[in-house]
Amino acid sequence: AFLAANQAAPVTKTYTARAAGVKNSVGARLLRLMDTKRTNLSVAADVTTAAELLRLAAAVGPHIAVLKTHADTVSDWTDDTATALRLLADEHDFLLFEDRKFADIGNTVVAQAGGGLHKIVNWADIINAHAVPGPGILSGLRVAVESAGRSVGVLVLAQMSSAGNLATALPGYTPAAVAMAVTEPDLVFGFIAMEGGLGGEACVSMTPGVKMGGGGDALGQQYATPDRVVGTAGSDVIIVGRGIYKADDPAAAAKEYREAGWAAYERRCRGDQL
Amino acid sequence: AFLAANQAAPVTKTYTARAAGVKNSVGARLLRLMDTKRTNLSVAADVTTAAELLRLAAAVGPHIAVLKTHADTVSDWTDDTATALRLLADEHDFLLFEDRKFADIGNTVVAQAGGGLHKIVNWADIINAHAVPGPGILSGLRVAVESAGRSVGVLVLAQMSSAGNLATALPGYTPAAVAMAVTEPDLVFGFIAMEGGLGGEACVSMTPGVKMGGGGDALGQQYATPDRVVGTAGSDVIIVGRGIYKADDPAAAAKEYREAGWAAYERRCRGDQL
Repeated sequence: AFLAANQAAPVTKTYTARAAGVKNSVGARLLRLMDTKRTNLSVAADVTTAAELLRLAAAVGPHIAVLKTHADTVSDWTDDTATALRLLADEHDFLLFEDRKFADIGNTVVAQAGGGLHKIVNWADIINAHAVPGPGILSGLRVAVESAGRSVGVLVLAQMSSAGNLATALPGYTPAAVAMAVTEPDLVFGFIAMEGGLGGEACVSMTPGVKMGGGGDALGQQYATPDRVVGTAGSDVIIVGRGIYKADDPAAAAKEYREAGWAAYERRCRGDQL
Repeated sequence: AFLAANQAAPVTKTYTARAAGVKNSVGARLLRLMDTKRTNLSVAADVTTAAELLRLAAAVGPHIAVLKTHADTVSDWTDDTATALRLLADEHDFLLFEDRKFADIGNTVVAQAGGGLHKIVNWADIINAHAVPGPGILSGLRVAVESAGRSVGVLVLAQMSSAGNLATALPGYTPAAVAMAVTEPDLVFGFIAMEGGLGGEACVSMTPGVKMGGGGDALGQQYATPDRVVGTAGSDVIIVGRGIYKADDPAAAAKEYREAGWAAYERRCRGDQL
């Protein structure tokens, strides 16, 4: 079920009003940035070359709060790709979220987050982690982040958008993921989730699988609309992939999603539920 | 609990006797290879440069059935690293297992397994996947494997070795992961698990977190001994990391673990439980 039967009404506080309660500096910055820039849109840049990635980032940059990347799908990634992404992020005031979905034991994620060819914590503002490995994964990511000496925020995957996922299928999964996350508020500022409110007002929910019209794909993805995600389910950030990067005009599509996501947020702040 | 109270006695069949029932060709090859080479050892090559990786592979190659890699922790990985690993694997008759722990939706893992800088399915014999995203992740890996046109086997993570992991904590997790895996026996030949017998005799269990003397690390890893893993818990392959790659003489350490793992297997085949 998209909405639990007993789910609380979505919070009506503004992002800015919630920012003061967020201990992770990237999380607080994201909440303020969204109100200032008037966008709760994250674009999932699921492209496979550095040129496409940078072109997309430049096109949608003015409209987004977060650019979500998969560095490991870019066939010609170099350190220069990261440098160029950071310049675009600073120019257009958006955050970089490397959607690596860390999912290993603590000792391994130290090396995966800090090393290799991608050196993720050297350029990403936001990273994420599955809860399956237990709390050691957060301890490992903390080691990597502190070694990098930058501000980085972590999102824990509490729910997923794909058909038959175990976070939805197993009743204890999401509560266990939330419990793991809220013990480290200076590192973890929220969740990948299909709804808002998890972990309380000081946590940010970002929701993937957003597309106008809903539907799905042939490999298990299930889409929800911006209205439903932000208005009904009370999530904070819509993550849109194919609806934007596959559009003939990604900038125009991003503007459209930005407006839909923002309108849903404004209605929510007025207590005007869908 | 390391052993479920109602766990069946470990299978006493030889690896070779079970191979005929394995539909994935890599899984069948692994079972036969272990009996031929008289080793059920996998070394986890958790090193951070190509030179260290290739040196370790050459040193332990004569003693192992599987070399487990984390390509994304190697700071100077190139296509040549993969080529050199393949040459060593063919020379010493071991399989390459890239422990990427795929954990995303189907559409994304197609690109992560087949593309990027690592092009994993172009060189790895074995890859693995978390069950959390649901069956779409296996559909996505199937697309990537078929595009590569090579024989690749998939292991599903049914259990983990780290403290507080949700596969252990949530009673429904492991059965759901096993159910997902056994529907695709031509692609999935077994599990990352702490015990054998999951999915029946046609499935191979590989167990991480193996170290003489047991114990743990500061980031949640919990170790078990070869005797316990192969003898008592009935797993098929021991995965040893720090016990070998951090040893002064990795080849000598690999020989020691090989002998311990093999002795436990021979006792198991005789029905002589620990």
